[in-house]
Amino acid sequence: MPGKVYLVGAGPGDPELLTRKAWRVLQTADVVLHDDLVSEEILRVLPLAAQVVNVGKRCGAKGISQIEINALMVSLARQGKLVARLKNGDPLLFGRAGEEMDALRQAEIEFEVVPGVTSALGAAASARISLTDRRHASRVVFVTAHRAAGTGLTNERHVAADTTYVIYMPGNRNAELAEELQAAGIGAEIPCVVISRATTKDETIFRTTVGKLAQLPGAVAPSLLVVGSVAGVPIGEETENEVLSKEFRSQILSLAMEHPIHNSYGRGGVE
Amino acid sequence: MPGKVYLVGAGPGDPELLTRKAWRVLQTADVVLHDDLVSEEILRVLPLAAQVVNVGKRCGAKGISQIEINALMVSLARQGKLVARLKNGDPLLFGRAGEEMDALRQAEIEFEVVPGVTSALGAAASARISLTDRRHASRVVFVTAHRAAGTGLTNERHVAADTTYVIYMPGNRNAELAEELQAAGIGAEIPCVVISRATTKDETIFRTTVGKLAQLPGAVAPSLLVVGSVAGVPIGEETENEVLSKEFRSQILSLAMEHPIHNSYGRGGVE
Repeated sequence: MPGKVYLVGAGPGDPELLTRKAWRVLQTADVVLHDDLVSEEILRVLPLAAQVVNVGKRCGAKGISQIEINALMVSLARQGKLVARLKNGDPLLFGRAGEEMDALRQAEIEFEVVPGVTSALGAAASARISLTDRRHASRVVFVTAHRAAGTGLTNERHVAADTTYVIYMPGNRNAELAEELQAAGIGAEIPCVVISRATTKDETIFRTTVGKLAQLPGAVAPSLLVVGSVAGVPIGEETENEVLSKEFRSQILSLAMEHPIHNSYGRGGVE
Repeated sequence: MPGKVYLVGAGPGDPELLTRKAWRVLQTADVVLHDDLVSEEILRVLPLAAQVVNVGKRCGAKGISQIEINALMVSLARQGKLVARLKNGDPLLFGRAGEEMDALRQAEIEFEVVPGVTSALGAAASARISLTDRRHASRVVFVTAHRAAGTGLTNERHVAADTTYVIYMPGNRNAELAEELQAAGIGAEIPCVVISRATTKDETIFRTTVGKLAQLPGAVAPSLLVVGSVAGVPIGEETENEVLSKEFRSQILSLAMEHPIHNSYGRGGVE
């Protein structure tokens, strides 16, 4: 019987942020091949019966290449194993899943992608940043620091104003990134936030500005840099809401009490 | 006792893609305020004991405004309720969570954001598209069709080559978007994929090109348009892997058998 490979998103770090599907796949996997960035908390909840192999390129198997990881997955699946290829965040964002899927297709191994909460969204949730808050931004760009430094951002002058940037893996490149961002026309006063190990017990959140970013020491991986007006002080201006909620208070209170409840979903299908 | 509001990501549609945390919050919520786009499958697994209110602006409470939703959350929390504000995908991407968080802060209501699998990643998993496949793209831009049509994309000429665009909510704007994309210098031959109701039983995936996009009828919401080389035919060129996996086959097989297994995580903390 041939095996199967699941490319599974581990989410940002908190085991509670695994999807229910990822959780089930992990409970039944024969082998878990994981990256360096998968949190210790998640590794701890893997079932004892599974073989767990760190195929990360930094702390894991010394010098293991992408090609070897691909071949390992194929080989294990051909032995009939159920393989979970576990990646921090979501597998399809900066995870080299493209190459792994190609290898699996070429070897005619059945596979499935189990999406996950990408690190950016875990970090945004912890820092309470609405990445596309319509009062500040109309779009969000996800890029790695490796590509941001150099030519990636310097073309951004004209769109920077209403764009949020999420820079994956800034590492110890804060000074370089600060320079790049300013060279790209993003003002020194624009807020930015560095979030390290989001949603784990070791989470740290540093709020600063592009102008002062260079002063921040490098953050422990996995970390993320969010740049844009959305990363600013939460309550800036008085919103329309504050004024109107007083005016509408009585209507709203009755709305809360009397609002039609929809019971037509045939609910109750809880396991 | 004051209540609490959870801004919860419902994920793309499949209840299995709720996070474990979202699932637990929903099981204990007194009231669930959900958007139109939350899938029927997910609404069906909500506990019977919860009040479930569609606060969506299209099919839900007629004419309910963002301000009223904010006030409703505040009012319910002040009554001591545990409120789950359930949004399709992730709450912090195109979800107006910024305004809701401001309203909660101003009212001094305790709240927490539970991130979710954003629709783009659910759709990418179904269509098996590595959004940032390093052979094709170095970054991904998330934008709504509303903003893409008009000025959003026309400035993109210089970055289009190595950028993947995920356009949320294309609706019936395919012709308009196709024109915009081409005006922005994205070639007619560039692949694109429209994914509707990703990860639900009604999922549909249409693969086409920018040049032929206008011929596609509008997709049922929630839908997404992915544009870029990454959306092309999965196995194009022979990859490095195919050649080398043969050469390394014997070494790899022994690697699969002998690879050191890390058992030092104190695993077994399964509930």
